[in-house]
Amino acid sequence: MIVQKYGGTSVGSPERIKNVVRRVAKYKALGHQIVVVVSAMSGETNRLIALAKEMQAQPDPRELDMVISTGEQVTVGLVSMGLMQEGLKAKSYTGAQVKITTDSAFTKARILSIDEQNILADLANGYVVVVAGFQGVDKEGNITTLGRGGSDTTGVAIAAALHADECQIYTDVDGVYTTDPRVVPEARRLKSITFEEMLEMASLGSKVLQIRAVEFAGKYKVKLRVLSSFEEEGDGTLITFEEDDKMEQAIISGIAFNRDEAKITVRGVPDKPGIAYQILGPISEANVDVDMIIQNVGVDGSTDFSFTVHRNEFDKAMDVLKNQVQSHIGARDVVGDNKTAKVSVVGVGMRSHVGIASKMFRTLAEEGINIQMISTSEIKISVVIDEKYLELAVRVLHKAFDLDQEPA
Amino acid sequence: MIVQKYGGTSVGSPERIKNVVRRVAKYKALGHQIVVVVSAMSGETNRLIALAKEMQAQPDPRELDMVISTGEQVTVGLVSMGLMQEGLKAKSYTGAQVKITTDSAFTKARILSIDEQNILADLANGYVVVVAGFQGVDKEGNITTLGRGGSDTTGVAIAAALHADECQIYTDVDGVYTTDPRVVPEARRLKSITFEEMLEMASLGSKVLQIRAVEFAGKYKVKLRVLSSFEEEGDGTLITFEEDDKMEQAIISGIAFNRDEAKITVRGVPDKPGIAYQILGPISEANVDVDMIIQNVGVDGSTDFSFTVHRNEFDKAMDVLKNQVQSHIGARDVVGDNKTAKVSVVGVGMRSHVGIASKMFRTLAEEGINIQMISTSEIKISVVIDEKYLELAVRVLHKAFDLDQEPA
Repeated sequence: MIVQKYGGTSVGSPERIKNVVRRVAKYKALGHQIVVVVSAMSGETNRLIALAKEMQAQPDPRELDMVISTGEQVTVGLVSMGLMQEGLKAKSYTGAQVKITTDSAFTKARILSIDEQNILADLANGYVVVVAGFQGVDKEGNITTLGRGGSDTTGVAIAAALHADECQIYTDVDGVYTTDPRVVPEARRLKSITFEEMLEMASLGSKVLQIRAVEFAGKYKVKLRVLSSFEEEGDGTLITFEEDDKMEQAIISGIAFNRDEAKITVRGVPDKPGIAYQILGPISEANVDVDMIIQNVGVDGSTDFSFTVHRNEFDKAMDVLKNQVQSHIGARDVVGDNKTAKVSVVGVGMRSHVGIASKMFRTLAEEGINIQMISTSEIKISVVIDEKYLELAVRVLHKAFDLDQEPA
Repeated sequence: MIVQKYGGTSVGSPERIKNVVRRVAKYKALGHQIVVVVSAMSGETNRLIALAKEMQAQPDPRELDMVISTGEQVTVGLVSMGLMQEGLKAKSYTGAQVKITTDSAFTKARILSIDEQNILADLANGYVVVVAGFQGVDKEGNITTLGRGGSDTTGVAIAAALHADECQIYTDVDGVYTTDPRVVPEARRLKSITFEEMLEMASLGSKVLQIRAVEFAGKYKVKLRVLSSFEEEGDGTLITFEEDDKMEQAIISGIAFNRDEAKITVRGVPDKPGIAYQILGPISEANVDVDMIIQNVGVDGSTDFSFTVHRNEFDKAMDVLKNQVQSHIGARDVVGDNKTAKVSVVGVGMRSHVGIASKMFRTLAEEGINIQMISTSEIKISVVIDEKYLELAVRVLHKAFDLDQEPA
C-alpha cells in the first residue's frame, strides 16, 4: 500500500494531472493499493486568497478556510475523473468526508485523528482513493485547513493511519541533495537520509518537504520518499527512521545554508537570570521569529547576547531592542548586521565521529572566511559568516567532506 | 424572517457581492432575520465543467458534483467576509454542513430533508446565515448537486424548512412580465401571479425562475418574490399560492412563447390501444423530451398522432420514427417541420371566463396566422404556428387581452 502526494505544480493543469494519472496507473498495474493526496492546482490558492482580501481586509479565518479548501476539492475530482478515463476505479474524498478531524485553529489546524475505515474498504474493492490534502474538519463540522504546505502533512498522516508501506512525496525536485546544485554543480542526490538530518536540512533552507510532515513521519514511523513528478525514472531520496548500517553511512549528509540571515548582538547585558526572556520576549511579541541564539559565558557580571532573524525582520527587531529593551535592561549597546548568511554541515555520523567541527573551521579558515557565530546540535554545526563568502563556503565544505563522492 | 437568493450574475464579482452585502445589511437593519442563499459566481460553474471535460469525456457524475459544488462554497465564504467587513455577524454553510440531505442522483439530486436547527440557532444569535445553493449531501456523505438553477430550489426549500415569511429570488430581471419586453415594449410587470400561472409561464419559456423551485414553493406554501438585484427600488413580482380577490384579477396574466419548437406528425396510425406508447417509447429511450402531444379522434380505424420536440432534437426524433417506429406500427408516413413556434395565453381567470379561446383564435385569424396545433389546460391555451409569425402573434394577443393596461 502506497500513499502518493502530489503538489500544486504536479497538478497545475489538465495535462499535468494526466501525467499523475499515468504514474498512478503504472503503480496500480504492479499490484499496489494506492491512495493519492493532492494539493490545489498551482496558483489557485493564491487566486482564492486574493478574492477573499477583496471582500475583507483581514479575512475571517473560518470563512477563509471555507473558500481556500475548494482548491483541493476541485483537484481530487479532476484526478478521479482522469483515473476513470484510464479505466481505473477511483473515488475522491474531501478532508471532511474522510474524515480528518482537526482542532479548530482555522488556517493552521492540527490533525487530531483520521477515520481510515472508508478508505480501507474502497482500497479492498480495487479503488484508487484520492484525498484532498491541506484540509480537515473540526468537531463542530467546520472546514479547516492545515496551513501552507499542509498537503504533505495530510499525505503522511493518511499513510500513518493506513499503515501504508511508503509515503511518496512528488515534487519538482527529484530528491534531497547534499547541497543546492545551483551553488555546487557536483552536489549529489542522497539515496537516503534520516529524519533527524532531514529536519535539520529542511529548517535550514532545503525546502523540499514541509517540516511538520517530516516530524509527523518520524513520530509515526512512516517511510517517506521524495521523488520528482516530472521524471519517469529515479528512486528519489528515502527518508528513514533508522540509521542505516553505520559502516556505509557518510559522516556528513549535506551542507545546508540560508542567505536571509541577519544577526543582532545586545552588548553589555547584565549577566543575571531572566535576561534572555527580557530580550526575546518583546521580539516574540513583535511576531519576529528568532533562529540561532547564542550567549557566551559572562565576564565581570556582563555578557553579550546574540541571535539571528530573517533579514526582512531585521529593522523591526532592531527597533524593538533600541526603543523598548536596551535602557530597560541596562544594556550598553545594540548592534546588528543584515549582510550575513548561515552555513551548516548536517549528518548523524558526527555523533560517532570527532573532529567534524575542527575540519569545518579549518576549511573555512584556509579560505580566509571569518566565522562570526557558531551554534551546534547533536547532528549539525552552523556558522554565521559574511554573506559574500556564502557560495565559496558551501563549495569548499562540500568538497572537504567528500560529498561529491558516493559513500564507500 | 426572510430568505434571499442571489444568482450567479448578482455575485459575479467582489464589487457585485458588495452590493448584495449592502442590501442584506439594509434588511437586517430593519430587524429581519436573514438567510442568504447564493449561486456560484457567474462563469465559474462553466469553467469547472470545462476542466472536468478535459479529464474525462463524460465526467463521472459523482466526481463532477465534487468539482462543481466548490463554486457555491467559494461564494458563501466571500459573502460572509463581506458581511463581516460591514460589521455584521455572519456564518457560511455548505449544503453538507446544513445539512441538506438529497437522494444520490448526482448532478440532478432531489432534496429529501433539511436540518434547520443550526441555522435557527445562528439566527437567534444575530447571525446572517449564508448557505450554498445548488448542493446537498446524500445519506453516504457524498456531495450532490441539484442540477442547473438548483439554487432557486435551495432557497425555497430553506424557506420552507425555516417557515420563513418570504423567499426573495434576486435575479437580473425585476419581476415577471406579461410577456417578453423585447418582443412587446408595452409588456407590463405583474405585481402578483399565482403559482399555477407561474408554472405555465416558466415551462413555456419565461426563464425567470426554475420550475422545480416554483413547484416546491407551491407545495410548501412558501411566499416567493422575484426581484432585481441591480435595482434599489421596486417590489418585484409576488408569486402567491392563493388567487387574489377575483374581482381585481385579470383574466389573462401573460403571453408565453417558445421559439425552439419543432412539430412531428405520424400519419395513418392504426387507431388502437397502445399506439401512443409504441410511438413515444422509442422517442423517450432516445432521451428526447416531448412537449405538446395531440391525437385527434380517428376516422376509419386510422388517425394522425402529433407532438412537438425541441428543435435541436428534431433530426434525432425523425430518425427514430422513420427507422424504428413507422414500419413497426404500420403508419403511413412521418412528416415534420422544425420552423414552428408555440404561443400560449396563461391565466387562472380563464377558469371562470368563457370565450378566451375563441378570442385568441379570432385575433390570430384576423392577422392571417394559421394555427397548426392546439393544446389546452385549465389555465392555458397553446397554439403552434409558423415561426415567422411568432412576434406578430405575441404582439396582437398582448393587445387583444389588454395586457398593456393595469387591471381595473
